[in-house]
Amino acid sequence: MIELLLIGIGTGNPDHLTRQAEKALRSADLVLIPRKGANKADLAELRQAICDELLQGSAARVVAFDLPKRDAENPDYRAGVDDWHDAIARVWTDTIQAEIGDTGRVALLVWGDPSLYDSTLRIAGRVDRAVPLKVTVIPGITSLQALTASHAIPINEIGAPFLVTTGRKLREEGWPAGADTLAIMLDGECSFQAVDPEGVTIWWGAYVGMAEEIILSGPLAELAPRIVETRAEARARHGWIMDIYILRRA
Amino acid sequence: MIELLLIGIGTGNPDHLTRQAEKALRSADLVLIPRKGANKADLAELRQAICDELLQGSAARVVAFDLPKRDAENPDYRAGVDDWHDAIARVWTDTIQAEIGDTGRVALLVWGDPSLYDSTLRIAGRVDRAVPLKVTVIPGITSLQALTASHAIPINEIGAPFLVTTGRKLREEGWPAGADTLAIMLDGECSFQAVDPEGVTIWWGAYVGMAEEIILSGPLAELAPRIVETRAEARARHGWIMDIYILRRA
Ligand SMILES: C[S@@+](CC[C@H](N)C(=O)[O-])C[C@H]1O[C@@H](n2cnc3c(N)ncnc32)[C@H](O)[C@@H]1O
Ligand SMILES: C[S@@+](CC[C@H](N)C(=O)[O-])C[C@H]1O[C@@H](n2cnc3c(N)ncnc32)[C@H](O)[C@@H]1O
Repeated sequence: MIELLLIGIGTGNPDHLTRQAEKALRSADLVLIPRKGANKADLAELRQAICDELLQGSAARVVAFDLPKRDAENPDYRAGVDDWHDAIARVWTDTIQAEIGDTGRVALLVWGDPSLYDSTLRIAGRVDRAVPLKVTVIPGITSLQALTASHAIPINEIGAPFLVTTGRKLREEGWPAGADTLAIMLDGECSFQAVDPEGVTIWWGAYVGMAEEIILSGPLAELAPRIVETRAEARARHGWIMDIYILRRA
Repeated sequence: MIELLLIGIGTGNPDHLTRQAEKALRSADLVLIPRKGANKADLAELRQAICDELLQGSAARVVAFDLPKRDAENPDYRAGVDDWHDAIARVWTDTIQAEIGDTGRVALLVWGDPSLYDSTLRIAGRVDRAVPLKVTVIPGITSLQALTASHAIPINEIGAPFLVTTGRKLREEGWPAGADTLAIMLDGECSFQAVDPEGVTIWWGAYVGMAEEIILSGPLAELAPRIVETRAEARARHGWIMDIYILRRA
């Protein structure tokens, strides 16, 4: 039997690691590290550095594998993602079988928390069809928590709801019903520009928790152009960017 | 100047602590631990145990204080909470001044993450009016992440939103617009019973992350009576309970 450990590692600050994550990593026989070619946003170095530090003196094998590419040409987005997840599951299965056969503990270091806008659990479900797996999830600090911590703000108003969604949804469907507080992730296009800024406050952050962290907050009307500019400049400088924000309307 | 460290400690598993939390705690001059009389749900023992383990050899003072009671008779709920937060802020201020004067680092161990349905940040804002503070937040594993980890599930469907809200809201306002996935916290009354169970799945957990953890999942129609019973029994046995759940409709 293979035990698959999906270990949340937080958002780039090695000190986001929990003791549970450290113990799980040290217990692994094999650690799989995905690589996206020369793409810095794969953050493979960071995962490698965590392994180098924590696995000193351990017998665990650390193996990098090339992440298959998603077929962006597939007109059926959902089918394209399905095929892509299948392809990743095949690479995991092959690598696990080549490295440790059909018994042992395999660790994957998941950015943030494995529950939040991450496909690792879904891919594990596909591996399970080829090689039966026991899946164990170790929670990690999410980018949303790293954002609220850096701004020193609560995410919710007292007893009030909040909605977590994507940049695409905000852009295409506008401010959703049901909540005056939104957390927006997976936004490559500064979709806050699609919102009527009247009475809206934004708390924005890029590279939150990392050495490169930038945070900005204030009335959306004032902040929107500044964030667009700051984001473009930071992205050009670092070659990649990840950002997240909270919007609250009065 | 007083630096106030609000340290997220996760939800009862001492291994939820991050390295950042450990370092912050060790850097403190004073640690404040709230007590609610004989109420086990104050989890003061757990906070004390974390301090005992991590502060060995440190000069930090660990001081328990009695948490003022909220006036539940106040007909204006919001004003009652305001007064209560003011009273807590006064106790913090007095204890800090008596123990370390007006300079040093004070730590508070916050259950889960300080951003999520927690009043510590708001109380800190009130202390700041009496004694100027620098507030630093250290993120911690939330009960929502402990829940999804124990069930080994993602919180969101691919690219889809989710809404986090309270038992009271669900009970009083029904299933909110805007999301097919809900995470419900602060529910003393099994408010999932107020929802039409047709096509709804529930993932429920009590004491998540702790030795006492209980988790149940399945179609809401089947699970609702079982959870009500399990919850009542566990609450009677332990003398307290904390539970959280995810609802998803097809
Ligand atoms: C594929 S999702 C993964 C989220 C991750 N599982 C988590 O728990 O935060 C990637 C999105 O998370 C957000 N994100 C992740 N890390 C971030 C960081 N360090 N700073 C800002 N946003 C981040 C961005 O919105 C990004 O588009
Ligand atoms: C005042 S809120 C604090 C939440 C906390 N800041 C967090 O990050 O999880 C308390 C609510 O959190 C949830 N909760 C906290 N700890 C829990 C646990 N160990 N098991 C289940 N639910 C928990 C329950 O819904 C409870 O009513």
